[in-house]
Parts: sequence; C-alpha cells; structure tokens
Amino acid sequence: MDKKFWITQEPINPNDCIEKVVRHEAGAVNTFIGTVREFTKGKRTLFLEYQAYIPMAEKKLLQIGEEIREKWGEADTAIVHRIGRLDITDAAVVIAVSTPHRHDAFEASRYAIERIKEIVPIWKKEYWEDGTKWIGDQKENTSYEKDIPSEEEMRDG
Amino acid sequence: MDKKFWITQEPINPNDCIEKVVRHEAGAVNTFIGTVREFTKGKRTLFLEYQAYIPMAEKKLLQIGEEIREKWGEADTAIVHRIGRLDITDAAVVIAVSTPHRHDAFEASRYAIERIKEIVPIWKKEYWEDGTKWIGDQKENTSYEKDIPSEEEMRDG
Repeated sequence: MDKKFWITQEPINPNDCIEKVVRHEAGAVNTFIGTVREFTKGKRTLFLEYQAYIPMAEKKLLQIGEEIREKWGEADTAIVHRIGRLDITDAAVVIAVSTPHRHDAFEASRYAIERIKEIVPIWKKEYWEDGTKWIGDQKENTSYEKDIPSEEEMRDG
Repeated sequence: MDKKFWITQEPINPNDCIEKVVRHEAGAVNTFIGTVREFTKGKRTLFLEYQAYIPMAEKKLLQIGEEIREKWGEADTAIVHRIGRLDITDAAVVIAVSTPHRHDAFEASRYAIERIKEIVPIWKKEYWEDGTKWIGDQKENTSYEKDIPSEEEMRDG
C-alpha cells in the first residue's frame, strides 16, 4: 500500500499510517483513531456499516492532506478510512500527522478529523438494538432515513 | 507487559499503548509519539541517550494518568517512555488516551506530554556532530552540562 490517503475494507493497523509520516525532520507524530463506540446517548450500537464512493473519498482525503501542508508547511499526513461492517472497538479512521514540533502535530491532526467529517463522502449506518438508520453527513446535521445519495446526486450536490 | 505506565529499553510499538486503552466506551483515541529529530535549530543530532530512575519515572507517569482521570473523568491513558540509546526517527515516548468523544482525547493527550516534560525524571543527552550535552529538565530550562543529578539529589529536590 503506497498511498498515503486511502479507503480500505480491512481492519486498520495504526502503524500503517504512522510509518508513512515518521521522518528525520519530525520530532512529533499525532495520531487520531476513531473507534466504534457501543453507547451513544444511552442507545446501544450493535455494529456499524460504512459506505463510500471510494475514488471520490480518497480524493477528498488527499485534499485534506494538501490543506494541512498549506497551513502547517512542514507537516506530513497519512489518513485511512475503513468501510464495510465494523464491530464495537474497531478503528473506522486513522490519521497520522508528523511535524518538527509537537504543537503543530496536535493542531493539524485535529483539523484533519474535523475536515473528514465535513467533506469526505462516507456514510455510516447505525445498527441499533431496535433498528437501523443511515447517518447523513458525518457531522450528523443531515439525516438520510432510508438511503444514501446516489453517486450522481453527489456529483450534482 | 501488563503495566499501563512504563519505561522500556526496547523499541516502542505504538500499538502496545493503543491496545491498552481501546474499549467499548471509547469513540476516540489520541496518540502522541515523540520521535528523535535530526536537526534542532540547524544543529545536527547524531543520536540521543535517555536515562531515568525507573521506579520514580514510572510512578510519575502513573500520576499523570491519575491527573487525566481527574480532569477528564472518562479518559483512559497509557504511556511508555524509552531509555538508552535512540537513533534518529526512533520513538522516545508514546502516549495513548481514549475517551468517549474526540475533543477530550486531544486535550488529555496534549496535557500528558506537557506534564511528562514537567515532572518525569528522565534525562536526555544530545550527541551532536561537535560534542555532547545533557539536557536538564525536559522543558530545557535547566541545563546539566556535565552530569545528571544523583538519585539522592532527586529525592531531596
């Protein structure tokens, strides 16, 4: 896997991201891992299903890496997002950012996860004890009760 | 290795920390890795040497975990610091903090690295191209040109 920004169906090993950004110029690596939590506001999740338009999603992840490089000139970033069925405690997303000094690594990593939730076309379906629901955009401002938008709708949107 | 706060002489695998904090209640894990940087203010580091009073250092790492639990009630923390000779890009310290929501994971992880540099008795000797120097406290406010304090001096300090 040579890509630094990719979507996978396989379990994620955080080291796959970390190793891509460790380098002589860096003194700090910040890693953010989003894992599947069992309870949300008292409601129990059994498992999740993520879907993505893979080429579009990878392009957006790459864009986030470029935005980080513009904002933090010496930062190097790798991001992987998993799709398919994920069980409780599985890693859904791993971000690794290396910088010369630690402050920037924290800031850039934080920026990356917020941007992923804003612009990357990945949908999450919650399987609760009492039903299922597609969660719309990842900031959960828009809800798609029945289905996610088609690829064509995405392109027009 | 059952400890969640420990000193090691061996290379660190970040997963050793991450696995200790992943759990059903957590939706976020923030990991901070401090790596050996080659250049500091234009000066080239060849390698580093860390020394610690191990039981004291592990006690202080545990204390930091307890402080985090007090400040972020639902946080779970693991920290490992390596000692001995470290080469460029080697991980000197790995922190992993899991929390239900991501904001707290970033904040607590940031807190941990700052506190490590404030209170944990670990000394760093820089081996530059043109000489060596013990770096005093990790915030680099105090310098020990020749040697680190003895264990007795530490206890009295």
